[in-house]
Amino acid sequence: MRLEEQMRFVTEAGRLKAVLRQTRLTEPARRENSAEHSWHLAVMALVLADHAVPGTDLGRVIAMLLVHDLVEIDAGDLFLYADQAQHARQEEAERAAADRIFALLPADQATRIRALWDEFEERETPEAKFARALDRLQPMLANFQAGGGTWAIHQITTDQVLPNLALIEDGSAALGDYARDLLARAADAGMLARPPRETGPPPS
Amino acid sequence: MRLEEQMRFVTEAGRLKAVLRQTRLTEPARRENSAEHSWHLAVMALVLADHAVPGTDLGRVIAMLLVHDLVEIDAGDLFLYADQAQHARQEEAERAAADRIFALLPADQATRIRALWDEFEERETPEAKFARALDRLQPMLANFQAGGGTWAIHQITTDQVLPNLALIEDGSAALGDYARDLLARAADAGMLARPPRETGPPPS
Repeated sequence: MRLEEQMRFVTEAGRLKAVLRQTRLTEPARRENSAEHSWHLAVMALVLADHAVPGTDLGRVIAMLLVHDLVEIDAGDLFLYADQAQHARQEEAERAAADRIFALLPADQATRIRALWDEFEERETPEAKFARALDRLQPMLANFQAGGGTWAIHQITTDQVLPNLALIEDGSAALGDYARDLLARAADAGMLARPPRETGPPPS
Repeated sequence: MRLEEQMRFVTEAGRLKAVLRQTRLTEPARRENSAEHSWHLAVMALVLADHAVPGTDLGRVIAMLLVHDLVEIDAGDLFLYADQAQHARQEEAERAAADRIFALLPADQATRIRALWDEFEERETPEAKFARALDRLQPMLANFQAGGGTWAIHQITTDQVLPNLALIEDGSAALGDYARDLLARAADAGMLARPPRETGPPPS
């Protein structure tokens, strides 16, 4: 029965509340979970919609953000600054998780919501690029507000944050400017680590 | 500056992660917070949309659900089964919270999102009724899955759940049927308390 299948998916989705992320909350001090993170991103999309490319379908952005991390129920959350091999393994695990989890839904919905997840992963449409920009901006805001957060805990350098900055700029010029400014202020305030070895001036 | 105001609101919204609800999660065992609850409701809206009245604007339902509990940042979460005087005080506190929190946004957005919150509270449109139905169904599902949950902890009787059932039926006939069946199964399984005093047969 259609409704039974939908309810099974709803129940399964609730398990995302148990997936902890690296992001630190300050009140009370604990790690954020992926359900909270997904909600916060959807609220950001609602409020920051005017900084998306004109014509962006906000409904699709929000739907994408609501489901984008469900695969972590099986695959867990991988820290943004993990190495390439870890990211490759994670990608495989997430695809297997998507196969299992979205298939809980009635077939037509499984196809439609899986397509949203694929769209987010492929990051080609304006909707997916804007959604990804928010997904990268939110931890940056949290780290800045925490006076360093996971940047400080894991000794992250400004260089390591630059690829995320590029993803934000790719999704929204205004949010990119905002993030670039935030990063500069974070570096000035000593929230980011210095590169492991200072390079001297180029040989003249 | 517009974006600064929006970011202040986004930051404020994050505080909803600290507002604990009565609903118990089982893995790990702890109380759910209102950010997680709001995300779960938005996912439910996405997945259960075909049980809303035809023509219901799903985007507005989801937007409403994303923001409906933000007032709890100031007002806290009141247990569903609190008494009438507590509910009246809560309503006042929530209105004051809405005045403060939505005003963090640029004026045009403050008006638009406050209107969504008012619409949810007034429960007159099909969108608001469907959103409220989900808001009442989610804790019921959680209690059932937990084998009693807050029903057992607070010795809630079937009679006390009936007003929630009416709200679910008012938002969606199919979800109402589902919830009525769930409640009957919960009662049969002894998850709900018996009324304080059994009444005898009416005098003949």
